[in-house]
Amino acid sequence: MSLVVQKYGGTSVGDADRIRNVARRVIAAKEAGNDVVVVVSAMGDATDDLIKLAHQITDSPNAREMDVLLSTGEMVSSTLLTMALENMGYKTISLSGAQAGIQTDSNYSHARIQSINPSRIVAEIKNGNIVIVAGFQGITKNNDITTLGRGGSDTTAVALAASLGASVCERYTDVEGIFTADPRVVPNASKLKEISYDEMLELATYGSKVMHPRAVEIGQIYNVPILVASSFNDRPGTLIHGGLMEIQNKVTAITQDMDVAKITIVGVPDTPGIAASIFEPLAKTGISVDTIVQNASIQNITDLTFTVTKGDAGKALQMVRPIAEKVGARECVADTKLAKVSIIGSGMQNTPGYAATMFSTLFAAGINIQLITTSEIRITVIITDDKANEASKALHKAFALEK
Amino acid sequence: MSLVVQKYGGTSVGDADRIRNVARRVIAAKEAGNDVVVVVSAMGDATDDLIKLAHQITDSPNAREMDVLLSTGEMVSSTLLTMALENMGYKTISLSGAQAGIQTDSNYSHARIQSINPSRIVAEIKNGNIVIVAGFQGITKNNDITTLGRGGSDTTAVALAASLGASVCERYTDVEGIFTADPRVVPNASKLKEISYDEMLELATYGSKVMHPRAVEIGQIYNVPILVASSFNDRPGTLIHGGLMEIQNKVTAITQDMDVAKITIVGVPDTPGIAASIFEPLAKTGISVDTIVQNASIQNITDLTFTVTKGDAGKALQMVRPIAEKVGARECVADTKLAKVSIIGSGMQNTPGYAATMFSTLFAAGINIQLITTSEIRITVIITDDKANEASKALHKAFALEK
Repeated sequence: MSLVVQKYGGTSVGDADRIRNVARRVIAAKEAGNDVVVVVSAMGDATDDLIKLAHQITDSPNAREMDVLLSTGEMVSSTLLTMALENMGYKTISLSGAQAGIQTDSNYSHARIQSINPSRIVAEIKNGNIVIVAGFQGITKNNDITTLGRGGSDTTAVALAASLGASVCERYTDVEGIFTADPRVVPNASKLKEISYDEMLELATYGSKVMHPRAVEIGQIYNVPILVASSFNDRPGTLIHGGLMEIQNKVTAITQDMDVAKITIVGVPDTPGIAASIFEPLAKTGISVDTIVQNASIQNITDLTFTVTKGDAGKALQMVRPIAEKVGARECVADTKLAKVSIIGSGMQNTPGYAATMFSTLFAAGINIQLITTSEIRITVIITDDKANEASKALHKAFALEK
Repeated sequence: MSLVVQKYGGTSVGDADRIRNVARRVIAAKEAGNDVVVVVSAMGDATDDLIKLAHQITDSPNAREMDVLLSTGEMVSSTLLTMALENMGYKTISLSGAQAGIQTDSNYSHARIQSINPSRIVAEIKNGNIVIVAGFQGITKNNDITTLGRGGSDTTAVALAASLGASVCERYTDVEGIFTADPRVVPNASKLKEISYDEMLELATYGSKVMHPRAVEIGQIYNVPILVASSFNDRPGTLIHGGLMEIQNKVTAITQDMDVAKITIVGVPDTPGIAASIFEPLAKTGISVDTIVQNASIQNITDLTFTVTKGDAGKALQMVRPIAEKVGARECVADTKLAKVSIIGSGMQNTPGYAATMFSTLFAAGINIQLITTSEIRITVIITDDKANEASKALHKAFALEK
């Protein structure tokens, strides 16, 4: 008998009817001869409602208390799914993150899983139960409740699958799978049958909102295949996996990220320690710096460019300006209307021609490239955000990704 | 430094403004030089809303799951109060029933506290924290969440006060204290300054909805004084206590219970085992039988009368009828329009005249008495429910309980 871990997102358990629908899907997996562990998110807007409630009390709620508050959302959905399954005649039990043995560090609101003690889950499976686990939460060594932050329930599911030696982690939401591009931008984008962990990580990091990279990382480390599929229909989804796939030497997907701003420090003296003096203060205030580009210096003077999210641009500029003045730079300028468009595919670096095709396609479309960054399996260009959709469409066509 | 346990009911924490109001009251107790532990109920209708949610899934929700679901209500209110206190500049922490060390049996939905391990609370108090505990809940030896059923949050508060050696358990709701009668029925009812545990237990058992007898019992066993007062004003409440009070030899209060039905089995052969054959099946189906009266038998034939709640009357009659036929009784009749009115006061039994005054007062008011029961500190009459208010008013006047 094999063990399957399923995870259902908030939309999938948004009301009583949808919870019953999820119960039927869980039962199908059970009836197919599997042991089943299910991880659920909070119902629909439940988490947002709890956050609103806290903000009625204070603008800066205590992080520990906020985690206890938010953890109730998944407790509610997990008990309701359990009730639905029992009502349909199945043995089942709900477990909180704590009861499921998910131990985390004490970084409230973005705790990381340190270890999983699956003994209770294993015992409940042995008792013949379908086990429903409240996602997104864990407990510290001191018995304090934590939440896992963004992508938390996916992380719970993949980590449990790893810990229990599940054959697959099936992750169901209102999205049917991973597409060659965002179907809202590129209407003839096609659904991928499979994708490697590395490619999925690049997709997630460079704009795809389908899945947070964190859960994919755990899947990769513990080699847990992750099926991404819809809970609203039975169409085949996309399997994220590793071992079996050969290098494809082709572009798998296009992704774009509209939330990009650029800050350029013009005329920086090219002396050691300059970069550190600029980026250390940014890191300390929690501003995440993405791409960094430094031009070749001419007469020991260079330009330093980095990208941040649009929301962080103002603050970053404020922080960088006095430092730039201090080191004798000429000026600081920000451009907050940018986007990233990336092509992603295994083995890209070893195969010439991808970059050339990408750049010529954009040139033909009259789109100016401001910055370029690459990884082993990705080429990213930064362009003005009003051209991003057009760029994605053109690249999708140029690399023949249509259905 | 003395320790005070405060408990706030659902109405008192019904919204953000009220939670802030409670926070200010908690702070006043802290600033008065006390260590403070606070027990909270779920916000306003939160528990009812969760029950509705479960009933959207199934008519008979699993009891264990229901308890997990309901326990979230008090987790929410406890974190919000903690956030409010921190926002006002105080060190504070919320604890779930499990974290507060409240261990119960595993009778889901009406678990009883078996023991309290207060080490975490004690440690948090030593850290300078105001400790906010989610009421109404505990945890079993197997680490499963339970709820304590009716009067649960009051029970949490009094039990914690006993376990921590608190000087007093202050129990705040929208009720100002214990009155000589229900002020909605007897407008000139007066608030009692104090009342003994015994009297309060009789009041609670015989109709007063102000406080569940369960918490009073724990207060009595562990000699914890319980102050019943309003969270919406600073008027003095009523202190429920024991040791210091002398027997007063007077009527303390009138109470009435409108939810009374009577079932009479007419012409029962007076043979051993008859009572058992009738009441055992009732007990097994969870029907709570209150007063039982058996008339003196004439020629080995007697009438057996017992009272149940109005809601249970139909079911009880259905169960009793075949048994009555089997033992050769003449008939079974039910009267579902009854009420109980009681006078309560310490030392009543040792002082003649109370019963006489009670019966003559009711006679003068033209109210017919159907059944009478007494305890050491209580006399109860069962009358038709349309006369109950009138009876309470007349007795309140006859025993001079007006303001």
